[in-house]
Parts: sequence; structure tokens; C-alpha cells
Amino acid sequence: MTERLAELNVPDRLLLGPGPSNVHPRVYRAMMTPVIGYLDPQFIQLLDDTQRPLRSVFRTENEMTMPISGTGTAGMEAAIYNIVEPGDAVIVCQNGFFGTRMVDMAKRCDAEVTLVEADWGRIIEPEQVKAALKSVGRQVKVVMIVHAETSTGILQPLEEISRIVHEEGALLLVDAVTSLSGCELLVDDWNIDVCFSGTQKCLSAPPGMAPITFSQPAMDIVMNRKEPVRSWYFDVSMLRKYFVGDQGTRVYHHTPPMTMLYALREGLRVVVEEGLEARITRHKRNADALHAGFAVMGIEIHAQEGYRLPSLTTARVPEGIDDDELRAGLLNEHNIEVGRGIAELQGKVLRIGLMGYNSTEANVLTLLYALETQLLNQGFQLDKGAGVSAATTHYDKTR
Amino acid sequence: MTERLAELNVPDRLLLGPGPSNVHPRVYRAMMTPVIGYLDPQFIQLLDDTQRPLRSVFRTENEMTMPISGTGTAGMEAAIYNIVEPGDAVIVCQNGFFGTRMVDMAKRCDAEVTLVEADWGRIIEPEQVKAALKSVGRQVKVVMIVHAETSTGILQPLEEISRIVHEEGALLLVDAVTSLSGCELLVDDWNIDVCFSGTQKCLSAPPGMAPITFSQPAMDIVMNRKEPVRSWYFDVSMLRKYFVGDQGTRVYHHTPPMTMLYALREGLRVVVEEGLEARITRHKRNADALHAGFAVMGIEIHAQEGYRLPSLTTARVPEGIDDDELRAGLLNEHNIEVGRGIAELQGKVLRIGLMGYNSTEANVLTLLYALETQLLNQGFQLDKGAGVSAATTHYDKTR
Repeated sequence: MTERLAELNVPDRLLLGPGPSNVHPRVYRAMMTPVIGYLDPQFIQLLDDTQRPLRSVFRTENEMTMPISGTGTAGMEAAIYNIVEPGDAVIVCQNGFFGTRMVDMAKRCDAEVTLVEADWGRIIEPEQVKAALKSVGRQVKVVMIVHAETSTGILQPLEEISRIVHEEGALLLVDAVTSLSGCELLVDDWNIDVCFSGTQKCLSAPPGMAPITFSQPAMDIVMNRKEPVRSWYFDVSMLRKYFVGDQGTRVYHHTPPMTMLYALREGLRVVVEEGLEARITRHKRNADALHAGFAVMGIEIHAQEGYRLPSLTTARVPEGIDDDELRAGLLNEHNIEVGRGIAELQGKVLRIGLMGYNSTEANVLTLLYALETQLLNQGFQLDKGAGVSAATTHYDKTR
Repeated sequence: MTERLAELNVPDRLLLGPGPSNVHPRVYRAMMTPVIGYLDPQFIQLLDDTQRPLRSVFRTENEMTMPISGTGTAGMEAAIYNIVEPGDAVIVCQNGFFGTRMVDMAKRCDAEVTLVEADWGRIIEPEQVKAALKSVGRQVKVVMIVHAETSTGILQPLEEISRIVHEEGALLLVDAVTSLSGCELLVDDWNIDVCFSGTQKCLSAPPGMAPITFSQPAMDIVMNRKEPVRSWYFDVSMLRKYFVGDQGTRVYHHTPPMTMLYALREGLRVVVEEGLEARITRHKRNADALHAGFAVMGIEIHAQEGYRLPSLTTARVPEGIDDDELRAGLLNEHNIEVGRGIAELQGKVLRIGLMGYNSTEANVLTLLYALETQLLNQGFQLDKGAGVSAATTHYDKTR
């Protein structure tokens, strides 16, 4: 047998990166709820009890709204794999890391993928989508786009694109992993057909489930496929029989992660109590305060102005500053995690998340102070205290 | 917005069904450990720290031993999808519900599936596998089999089958969801190439992760596929870069469910402290006591004699007894969950789990007493107290 393991001893970090973000204390408490069976009447009640507020937070009436038993990427896989069949023409909007991932998944479904591209840090323009839909030369089944690009900090407007997509008879599939409950997202009003998210961002639960919702037109496609979904685990035509029921009974598909469901339910409960509008306003206010601090510190924001995600900010690493050293200083001296840039933004940006429970005045001020300290350590020129002061001024003005 | 949600209020059941089983209290406590980032050096350390005891419990030296971010079925999907490519000849042993599921998954990978069948409740004989391997007429890539069939209560011997499979140049893929740490399972000694399990059975953690291990020959296949794995989320060639590393660095794939990893680690820690041999002996002793009780109560065990799974017993519902009423009585009057038969065994058997933390003298006696009470309620003839007494006699003899 192996040697005995030491007791778990994990530092309590302030998680201001791209996610996971810190878990709400009430969510931790809810996770102590005893695990019960997947067909226990009390558990079935709890499923319904979780799906209702999930619909509210997605702002949808879609019956097929449920959590997928995996992390956010599992939600992406469930969304794409259920809609796409081999040979389908699909359009993927690619202006960041997660768009690239959607391309990879669509290709694994043997779709014919047309790209709509923008620089990492800029939005996709509606005209680009329109032109792509025309250029394909046959019916496009679905257009995929990221609402909140965690790799670039872009918040993508969707209303006009949705109008164009539906005019051309296609569906709209949206990655809302970093936006759900952190910024405006109106699944029904914007006519989004498939939308997925994760628990570990603005919902302030641990990673492990992926909320997802399918419109009726999307479900019509799911239920009338020519061949089965390539994934068994994520096959929504079967999951439906458990989460919605089949002629009044619930049919076992797989054992859902009860504890994660309890966590999601409590996370949603906190959102409902705060109110979705108030929560979105809070995210915006704290992001604005952070950005005000950055402005006076001479730190540039990478994402296109006017389209900046409140839950995740990409801050350009100033010239002459060592990115690895900066993040290590934040982690080791201040116990703060921020994210590094990925792929083509590696070394060029910091990714700073203010999500859910973590979107607070205290965290903005703490981060600005720590960042200032680390930048000064590396010889960067700034007025000590100016960033924090700019943030507090913003708070005073908006109190 | 939706109405406010009530506080979570879930009954504390005794879970003696096919899983989930009750979670060890230490595992619940470990789940309160703060979530940290997926590239935090402390988290990477923790991954290694979890993979080591996982290898011990699987009794393997396989480098590629890790938890999949999903429930047991996700482990099955990861196992099959990584090995199988379109057009491959595969053999699936089908003598229960989970064998059927493997067939469905293999077909979604466009494999050519040959079945080896046995009645639900009987083992697969090595000669059947040998004959099937000969009959296919070309190289078979992999033979899939369930070690512990949760639907039938069968414990499948694997050594001789493994010898035959490898003689014919095929790989052996094993579902050990209900056996890992509850009965003998020797991945290396038995030459198993891919083996997967779940956290919610004998490991006494909540559902949500699927331990899996790949032998070097299996990894050679994974790393040299002609086309990408059909699943992106479960693609082990990419997961490897995170869980084992790529030239010394860990490459982000998806955000793992930290809290579930803490749970798995603590579950493994408890196993290591008890000792794997002692744990297996405990499972056997409690199953034997249960079976001794059933014998005197006139309750037949459905699974073939000599091949009965200690962690899950299929008890035949006696003639004249209403299965639904029996289980409802256990749940509502005794707060005990047992499982119902599924598919062709529906209404014919109860499925009784004694897994991990739940495999105790107290639970055996409690269940026998409750079952006796419910059977008497339905007018079944038995000597009151005889079942409990037979179990205590077994305990006395083996103390």
C-alpha cells in the first residue's frame, strides 16, 4: 500500500483570476447536505427546485433548462454535440480562446466550419456574420459565439447578430460561461437557442456543473437527429427523460453529482435573493472602479472600449514588467491569484476576474494596492496610492 | 425574478442501494477546503497527491491514472472513446445493464461490435470470449467487460479472460465502478489496459469524478490515433498534458472540479489508512452476513453462486410481494433506500449496496430488521428475528 496521506492543507487564496472564483460561504454550507439517491422523490423535487431559478437567471421559459454533470467545457460539448451532425454547415465566431475550442469541437462532429474572425480583444461585428451566412452557399444550421470571452475580456453584443442569424434560418448557440448572473443575458428576448454556462464564475459555486438551456427550435433538432449524438454522456434526448421526465416518470441516465447540485441551488438562491438586476449593477460598478484605478496607474485595458466585460478585465502588462514575476508576487506576497494571458495573449495581459461573491469594493481596493506594490517592486513608475484613490472616488460618486 | 427558494432540507437517508452510498464524514469535511486555481502550484501538488493513492487502489503503476471530471458514466465514455476509432472491431461482454451501455457507446464511435452474452445474473465464461475473438475474422482491438455489474450483482472473474484477450492481441477494458476498493481488483497483475470507476460507491465520496487508468499499450493507442477522439472533453491525449504534464509544464484543458478532487483525495486517504486488504475483507464479511440472513428468511439471491459481488447484492423479490410497496416502506418507515431492479430485472430484484463507509455490521442488521418488518407487513411467512440472528451468528463466528 502507499504511504499515508497528510491532511488536506490548501491556502485560502483570493481568486481574482478567470475562474474558479471564491465560493460563497453559504454554498460551502449547502454542500454538507447529505447525498441522497437519484430517484428519491426528495431529490427529484430538488431538481425541479433548481431548474426553476436557473430559468430565471438565464431569463428564459425554456423547459429544457438543466445542469450538465461536468464543468463549463462539458456544457460547451453538450451544446455543440447535440445540435451538430456530420456534414452540417456551421459558423463559429472566433475572436478568442474559447471560440477556437468551439471550432475544434464542431470539427469532431464532422461539421463544415466557416470562421468569422476578429482580433483577440475586439468584438465580432454583425455585418461579418451576415456576410458569412451569405458566403456559405447553403443553409447554415447554427452560428456559435462567445458572449463573454474569458481569454480577451470582451462582452459580445448579441441582439443584432441573433436577428441576422434567425433571418437566415440558423440557430444561435452562445457560450455564457463568464456572463451568467454577472452581466445582462436575456436568452428569450435575444432569441438564443442554446446557451451554456459554468458554476464557478459569477454563480460563486465550485466548478463541476454546467447550466444549459435549449429553445424549442433547438430541442426540435435534438429530438429529430438523423444519427445519435456522438456523446452518450451528454445526449440531451436521454437527459431530458431524467430532468424533465418521460410520461410522468424520471428515467435514470447517470448518477448526477448531488453535492454539486446542492451547490448550484444555493448559488442560485443567493442570486435570487440579491436580485439579478442588482447583481449585474454591482458587477458593473466594481469593474468601473477597477478600470478607474488602472487609468491613473497607466495600465491599459486590452479589450475594445465600450465592450468590456465587467466580470473579467484583461489588463495589459506594462512594458518592461515581467509577467511571471508579477503574478508570482501577487500570489506569494498577497495571496491573490490573477490569471495569465493564454495563447496569443500569453505574457501580454493579466486576466482579472471580479465574479459573483468576489465582485466587491474590498477586493478591488486590495487588488489595486497589491498590484501597485508589485509594479513598484519592479521599478514601474506610478504615483503611490493613486489607483486605490481613483477607485474610492468612483465608489463615492456611485454610492 | 423568481420566488425565493427555501433552505435546502434533505432527509438523511441510509443509502443501501446501487449508489450513491453514504459519504464518509471526513469526506464532507474535506469538501470545505477552499477552492483554488487550476494552475496554482499547491493545486498541482494536490493532483499528484491524489494520483499516487489512486494508483495504489487500482493496484497499478500506470502513469496515466487520473480522475475524469464527471460521474462513473463519464469514465466509461472516456475509456471507450479514447480507445475506439470508426471501423474498429470490438467485443462487448453483455450480461447486464452496463454492458448494454458500453455497446451503445462503442456504436456511437462507429465501431463494429460483436457481443458476448450471458443471462443477467450469470458470468461471462472465458471460452465465450475465446470463441468470439476467433469468430470476428479480423484483429479485435479491445474487449470490454464489467467487473462488478451493479444491475445483476455479479462479480466477473477477469484473469483468464485477460490472458485470452491478450493472446489474441487485443486490449482489455474494464468497468470497475462498483468494485474499486470494495473487492479485489489488480489492474497490473491481471493485465487490464483501461479501467474506470466512480467516487460514489466503495470510495464513499459524492458522485462527480471517475477515476481511470490506462496501461502503456492503451496509451500508445490513444497517442497514435488516426482521427481525434470524438469527445473533446474526455480526450486523454490532451488531459495528459494537464494531469501528467507536457515537458515539465501543466497545460490547461478544462477547470477541474476542485471540491470533488478534495473529496476523492480524502476518500482515498481513508482507504489507505484502513488498508486495501482489510477493506476488502470487511466488504466480504458484511456481504456474507447479509446473505446468511437472507438464506434463513427465504430470500433468494439472483446472482450466480460463487460470483456474488460483496458491494451489491441482488435479492429476488419473493412471490406475492409488491416490489414498489416494499421499497416505499423501507424508505418512508425506515429511511432506508434500496435499489429497484432495472430493465429486465425490474420488479424482480432489490439491489442492496453495502459499499465503503456503509459496509458495516450496524447497517446489515438494520436492513435485515427493516426488510423483515416490511415483508411481514405484506403477509410474507418468516420467523421473526431469524434473519438478524443468522447475521449475528456469522459475525460471532468471524470476529
